[in-house]
Formats: sequence, C-alpha cells, structure tokens
Amino acid sequence: MAAQGQVITCKAAIAWEPNKPLVIEDVQVAPPQAGEVRIKILFTALCHTDAYTWSGKDPEGLFPCILGHEAAGIVESVGEGVTEVQPGDHVIPCYQAECRECKFCKSGKTNLCGKVRAATGVGVMMNDRKSRFSINGTSIYHFMGTSTFSQYTVVHDVSVAKIDPKAPLEKVCLLGCGVPTGLGAVWNTAKVESGSIVAIFGLGTVGLAVAEGAKTAGASRIIGIDIDSKKFERAKNFGVTEFVNPKEHEKPIQQVIVDLTDGGVDYSFECIGNVSIMRAALECCHKGWGTSVIVGVAASGQEISTRPFQLVTGRVWKGTAFGGFKSRSQVPWLVDKYMKKEIKVDEYITHNLTFGEINKAFELMHEGSCLRCVLKMDA
Amino acid sequence: MAAQGQVITCKAAIAWEPNKPLVIEDVQVAPPQAGEVRIKILFTALCHTDAYTWSGKDPEGLFPCILGHEAAGIVESVGEGVTEVQPGDHVIPCYQAECRECKFCKSGKTNLCGKVRAATGVGVMMNDRKSRFSINGTSIYHFMGTSTFSQYTVVHDVSVAKIDPKAPLEKVCLLGCGVPTGLGAVWNTAKVESGSIVAIFGLGTVGLAVAEGAKTAGASRIIGIDIDSKKFERAKNFGVTEFVNPKEHEKPIQQVIVDLTDGGVDYSFECIGNVSIMRAALECCHKGWGTSVIVGVAASGQEISTRPFQLVTGRVWKGTAFGGFKSRSQVPWLVDKYMKKEIKVDEYITHNLTFGEINKAFELMHEGSCLRCVLKMDA
Ligand SMILES: NC(=O)c1ccc[n+]([C@@H]2O[C@H](COP(=O)([O-])OP(=O)(O)OC[C@H]3O[C@@H](n4cnc5c(N)ncnc54)[C@H](O)[C@@H]3O)[C@@H](O)[C@H]2O)c1
Ligand SMILES: NC(=O)c1ccc[n+]([C@@H]2O[C@H](COP(=O)([O-])OP(=O)(O)OC[C@H]3O[C@@H](n4cnc5c(N)ncnc54)[C@H](O)[C@@H]3O)[C@@H](O)[C@H]2O)c1
Ligand SMILES: [Zn+2]
Ligand SMILES: [Zn+2]
Ligand SMILES: [Zn+2]
Ligand SMILES: [Zn+2]
Repeated sequence: MAAQGQVITCKAAIAWEPNKPLVIEDVQVAPPQAGEVRIKILFTALCHTDAYTWSGKDPEGLFPCILGHEAAGIVESVGEGVTEVQPGDHVIPCYQAECRECKFCKSGKTNLCGKVRAATGVGVMMNDRKSRFSINGTSIYHFMGTSTFSQYTVVHDVSVAKIDPKAPLEKVCLLGCGVPTGLGAVWNTAKVESGSIVAIFGLGTVGLAVAEGAKTAGASRIIGIDIDSKKFERAKNFGVTEFVNPKEHEKPIQQVIVDLTDGGVDYSFECIGNVSIMRAALECCHKGWGTSVIVGVAASGQEISTRPFQLVTGRVWKGTAFGGFKSRSQVPWLVDKYMKKEIKVDEYITHNLTFGEINKAFELMHEGSCLRCVLKMDA
Repeated sequence: MAAQGQVITCKAAIAWEPNKPLVIEDVQVAPPQAGEVRIKILFTALCHTDAYTWSGKDPEGLFPCILGHEAAGIVESVGEGVTEVQPGDHVIPCYQAECRECKFCKSGKTNLCGKVRAATGVGVMMNDRKSRFSINGTSIYHFMGTSTFSQYTVVHDVSVAKIDPKAPLEKVCLLGCGVPTGLGAVWNTAKVESGSIVAIFGLGTVGLAVAEGAKTAGASRIIGIDIDSKKFERAKNFGVTEFVNPKEHEKPIQQVIVDLTDGGVDYSFECIGNVSIMRAALECCHKGWGTSVIVGVAASGQEISTRPFQLVTGRVWKGTAFGGFKSRSQVPWLVDKYMKKEIKVDEYITHNLTFGEINKAFELMHEGSCLRCVLKMDA
C-alpha cells in the first residue's frame, strides 16, 4: 500500500497505432482522484471489442490507448469519497458502469448506466476529463473505462464490482464480459422459458454462454449454427443439442432453421456481429412470437434490414449489452454462482499466456480452437 | 330465412381490375358449406388495405375480387357444424380468424390464427378451395376472408365475432379493423404503462386509436407527428397532447423527438406504412428501454433498416396485426366497451355514404379530413 497517493510505474501494453503490435512498456499510472479506484490487475482475457478497436475499424477508437476490459484484480488504493471498495478488495472492472442514481439505473428497465459514459466514451476520467495513464508525459487514452492491459489501472468507482475474495481471479476474470453477455442475453433480455426452441448463430464464447443460459432455462432444443464445424463437438458440453453448418445447405439459413422447427424457433441469438446473419436470426423466428436478440457487435456503419412484415406478424427484434446485467450488483452474484458450480467459467478458457505474449493472444483469437485466452499480468 | 341453402343474388362492388373503379353489380352468393357462415352485411367502412390491393400494388392481390374487411351485419344462414352463431345473430366479420385449436391460438402468445390462412390468402374458402361468389358462372375471389363490399358474404365460422344485438351496426362496423388495431397496439403489443411518453407517427384512424389507447393507459405525454397540420386540432380529442410537423423542422424527425423528450420516448407507433418513418419511430425511442411498434403496412418489397447498435443499446422493435386482439373473443368485448362509453367509435366516422357511392368513398380516403367513411349497404 506504499504507493497510495503516488504515481505507480508499471508495465502496460500500449496500442500506439491501429493494427500495429501492442508494445509492453513502462507506463505511469496516476493515483485515483475523487470517485476513482486504482486496481492491480492480476489476470486479463481478450475479447473481440479489443481486437475491433485495435484494428482501427472502430471510428471512435482513440490512440495511443490501453485496451482490455475482461479482467480481475485487487484494489490498490481509492480516491476521495469512495466507500464501496477499499484497498485489498478483490474486484472485476466493469465496462458497463452502475451508479444506482442516474435515470437509467433508476428506471429499473436497463443496465445501461449513463453516469460516466461521457468520459469513458472518449478515453478519459470524469473528474478532470484527463487520462491517468502517461508515458514520459505523453497521455495515453483509457478504453471502455477499464484498460485492463496494464498491471495497474484507474477506473470510476461505479465501474468496480467487489467479489468473493475466495474466487480464483484467473478464472472469474471472464465474468467481466463474454460469459455474462451470453447468459444474460437469455435470462434477462430474451427471458427464455422452459420448453423453448432456441437457435444460436455463432459458437464462440458468447454463443456458448447463450447455450448454457438456454440449457439452464430449460430449453427443449438448442440449435447451434456455425460455419466452422469444428465448433460443434465442444458446443455439446455447453448444451447445444443440434448443429447446422450454413455452408452445407443451399437454402438460406433462415429457411433451413424454419424447416427444422416446424415454423421457426421461439428465440434466436446472433453472436457473431454479422448484419446479414442478424437478419437471418430474426427471420428464422416463429411467426406470432419468435424473439431475436442481437448480441454480436457489427462493424461501424453497417445496417440491419428486413421486411416490416416480419415484425407485423409478431416477431420481436431486440439487442443486449452485457446481457442486461447490472454490473456492480450482479457480477458478484455471477461469481457466487460460479463458486457454487451453477455456471461454467473454466471451460471457456482454452489458452493461458503471460502478459508479455499479448500479441500472440490477439493472433489466437482468429483460431477456431480459441475461446478465451487468459493472460497472467506478472510479465 | 327463405334463402337458406339457396344461392342469393345481391349487389356487390366488384374490383374487376386493379385501379379501375369498382362496379356495383349482381353477384351470386352460394350458400355456406360446412363451417361457413353467410352474413347479410348492413354497413361497411373502407380501410387502407382495401385501397392498397385495389391499387394493384399488392403482389398477392387477386382479381376479380370483392374487397372490404371492416363491417357489421346479421347472420343469414350457417353451414353444417356451425355452432357458435345462428341466423339472426349480429356479427362482425374478422379478417383475423380465431379457431382456438391451432398452434397459434393455443400458444397464448399471439392472435395470428393459422387455421384458414391457406385459403383466405388466396381468395377462396377452405372446404373446397373455391369461391362462394360468382357472376354468371365467373368466379370472383374473396378478399381477406371477409369481402364485405357485398350485401351478402360467406366467411369461415372462425372468422365471425358475435356481438351484442343492441350495438348500432352503423358504428361498431369500425371495430372490424382500424380502431382495435390502434387500441391493441398500445394495450396488447406495447403494453404502455401509466406515466409513459408516447410518440405516434400518423394521425389517421389507426394513429388516433393509438392515442386513445395511450390516454386510457395513463400516458403522461402523447406526441402526435403528422405532415398534415390540419390533423392536429382533431387529434386533441383523442388524447394527443403535443404536435410535431416534420416539415417544420430541419433536423431528422427522430432527433426532434429525442430533443423534445430528454433522450427519447418510452413507446412509439408507426401508423403510416412508410419504412423510413418506421426507422425514425425506432430511433426516437429512449436508449435502454424504448419500444417501437410498427402498425402501418408498407408497400410490398420495401424494407426497414437501422444500425444494430440501436437494438444493442436497448431499443425493441415490434409490430402488430389487428392490435394483437383475439378476434372472436375480444371484438365482442370491444363492442361492450363501446356500449359502456369506455372507447370511442362514433368520433372516427367522418363520412356516411350509400353503397352505390363506394368509388367516391375511395377518393375520400385521400382527403385529409376523412377518417372513416361508412357505407350503408341497401344501395
Ligand atoms: N452485446 C455485447 O454486450 C457483447 C459483449 C461481448 C461480445 N460481443 C460480441 O459478440 C460477438 C461474439 O463474440 P465471441 O467472443 O463469441 O466471438 P467468436 O469470434 O469467438 O465467435 C464467433 C463465432 O461465429 C462463427 N461465425 C462467423 N461467421 C459466421 C457465419 N456467417 N455464420 C455462422 N457462424 C459464423 C465463428 O466460426 C465463431 O465460432 C462479437 O461480435 C462480440 O463483439 C457483444
Ligand atoms: N397492422 C395492422 O393490423 C393494420 C390494421 C389496419 C391498418 N393498418 C395500417 O395502418 C396505417 C394507417 O392507417 P390509417 O387508416 O390510420 O391511415 P391514414 O392514411 O388515415 O393515416 C395516415 C396518416 O399519416 C400521415 N402521414 C403520411 N405520411 C407521413 C409522414 N411521412 N410523416 C408523418 N405523417 C405522415 C397522413 O397525413 C395521415 O394523417 C396504414 O398503413 C394501414 O394499412 C395496419
Ligand atoms: Zn467484451
Ligand atoms: Zn447509472
Ligand atoms: Zn383494415
Ligand atoms: Zn387458430
């Protein structure tokens, strides 16, 4: 705790420019200001949003920055007025904040807290609209209000979930993004009922978490759709009961699913980020009640479309961010469910590397075999 | 009742060809077969779906046909096995059937009965896949399973709502389409809660019925949007509290509404049939929870589109057909509500003509002052 109130110099992976390998180097991390928390990150995983911004395709991406948003660590110090966590607490940084005070938080209808968005959306902290990261005086932008590709990071107190200190941080770091997104898409956004027929487009981490969520919700059939047939064997463990590879069919995939299900599925989930699959996911829903949830994030500027008749005849089109979970309230609950073995986490971790190997971890994301790669931060 | 089992010759308005004036002439109406009901139509109104099919733009439109689907009458005779209505019953023909037996009816999730659709969609009756209308041997297609532009029509028993015989047929004929569609969009599809902010695009009959539905649901603000400012004065009587004419703004209409409502509305309804307004209606919804319901019917082939981000950030896109009302069960309930003065009907009737003036009634639909024109059938 000697560093409290002091600048900490530690290693971070800097994205200096789009599409150039990250560079691990010394970064100065300023102490937390009022309402802020400095966290020693112990483990971080990688998610597609990191890769998307890194690629330069995200028009809102700011460089140089420190990416990363799926991680776990221990509070190092807290700024003025921070009451809900203290140094030593085990925490998961949450890119989706929860302030419990704003219009969104108080609505009872959404998890999309608006409190710190104006700052996190532009890579700075609310208090002074500045970054806490710098390298020899050059300011480095924050990312998603989390920036977990650093041994220390500073986040807003409304973006920190305090969790059971007995939980293994090298596992529960995954509860910072992909797994809750899939589970919550089923439990919170779609509210799948027992006996439902479910279609899942894309069997990566998010799609598999949807499958697990659907299984626990009592779905009668869980149809997994992926263009990579190698995904199918693994998906069985997560609850997928049937597989369809669109490449093996001539008919449009929505028609294939409608034919398989006597009129369409009760719920579908797009877990890829492909706008034409989003359309297929809607159109394979049953007339009268089928609900499709967009989970995947499409590239900027792309649009979804369909005939309005699809909606007039009873289909519903929705989306989800962080699975509709209220982050500070519910991430600890998810950790507890994991500790009680009610949800999987370990099974999504296919690779473990050290922080120094982060560029290799980015490459792994393009490999079919990789779900989540967890990096140990003591590089 | 003398005609029971006999062919009835009566007047009907025949649409021989798209876009040509209807011709009132003698038509032979065959007796009802098993599961069918022959109805003496006393009053019919006109709706946009009639005009759309008549215009030739509906690729599924079949000619020659007898249009009309918003009407009221008295059962003349019934076919074998018909138990729920008998000659003399006052009824409203329902283009949306309700069989209470099919997958849809039994789902408890939708009003879109599938029982007779295969026949009504192609202008014939289920029993023998033939029409009951002919003129000197030339078969004339049915339309929407109702064909109310005829002094006598034959419909499936699952498409007949038996109503309070005390109800004035010249008024409650409107409960066959437009008014229930608007009320139900609010009550059944959107389920608007008290205190909600509502936007309604298009202030015709359907939009005004949405306003009335929203008012009874306790909406705090009901914003009416129409390009014809003459609609605004009348709309006040139906509950609209604020007006916006998109033509008076430079900004896109969704932005105007978002600005007016500190972030967007809780519920929006598209009651025009214009795909770009459908998009605006979605995009003027509040992030996190705003729900948009498509009520208008777009021209064939047109598509809706938006950025998927709109849905991922919590907006919901839905549609409604006949306001989600189960026709045989709920139209009689709506009639009762009207009789108890709990819903308006008279106020939507701006014009009354005789059946012989039906082509004039079609022209009136293009006039801003016209909501519904009711035709008396004893031409
Ligand atoms: N809404 C949110 O809050 C949120 C949170 C996290 C991730 N996401 C998004 O969810 C999506 C999935 O994430 P992930 O980590 O599971 O990704 P992933 O790349 O591991 O999985 C995607 C899967 O889709 C398959 N696929 C690709 N194209 C396909 C096609 N045309 N048809 C069928 N299958 C196809 C791939 O083979 C792969 O198995 C991404 O877009 C990610 O950005 C959204
Ligand atoms: N889903 C269903 O079950 C169902 C049932 C009945 C009717 N409908 C449809 O509902 C729609 C409305 O029916 P109606 O009888 O009220 O029609 P209407 O023509 O009387 O009303 C439409 C209103 O929209 C206004 N308008 C037109 N273009 C506009 C624009 N760009 N911006 C704002 N306002 C605009 C017009 O001035 C008019 O007041 C039609 O498309 C009809 O086919 C659907
Ligand atoms: Zn993520
Ligand atoms: Zn908040
Ligand atoms: Zn109609
Ligand atoms: Zn039915």
